Amino acid sequence: MENLTYLRKSIDNIDNAIIAMLAERFKLTQKVGIYKAQNNLPAVDNTREEEQYNRIYQLAKEYGLNPQFAKKFLETIIEEVVKNHKKIADIS
Amino acid sequence: MENLTYLRKSIDNIDNAIIAMLAERFKLTQKVGIYKAQNNLPAVDNTREEEQYNRIYQLAKEYGLNPQFAKKFLETIIEEVVKNHKKIADIS
Repeated sequence: MENLTYLRKSIDNIDNAIIAMLAERFKLTQKVGIYKAQNNLPAVDNTREEEQYNRIYQLAKEYGLNPQFAKKFLETIIEEVVKNHKKIADIS
Repeated sequence: MENLTYLRKSIDNIDNAIIAMLAERFKLTQKVGIYKAQNNLPAVDNTREEEQYNRIYQLAKEYGLNPQFAKKFLETIIEEVVKNHKKIADIS
């Protein structure tokens, strides 16, 4: 069991780092949301999204991560970001 | 637009780091999967999952990240991990 405990500790460490980075990421997208609302830009930007998906897909392949999973992961994030941007636009 | 470009560059940098960490995370869970298969342990471990969800939830709150989103994010990862562990068990 020693081995499993050891691996799980490393997994938890990685999760801590990912959670910290996601927190920072949402602080930045919050700023993007405010910028968009102030400049009457739409919450969804298909060109930007396509660029992000392509970039993440290529990067995942390069890093040895399942690229389909990486896309799904980005999808989950963007869904949340767009929801937040719409909220910001509504109250602006 | 300068401001938007600047923010997006930082978002991309964070995404690069997250993708890199996810790649490392799946390398570790791959090892966990092999360990479980070799020791006839089930792919799903509810106690461990509950601990992970609680930990991530608390951490997200502490870091100022929507804890519901953090749970959803962990859900997406665990779903993929369990799928992989079942595959490893089948071929072992």
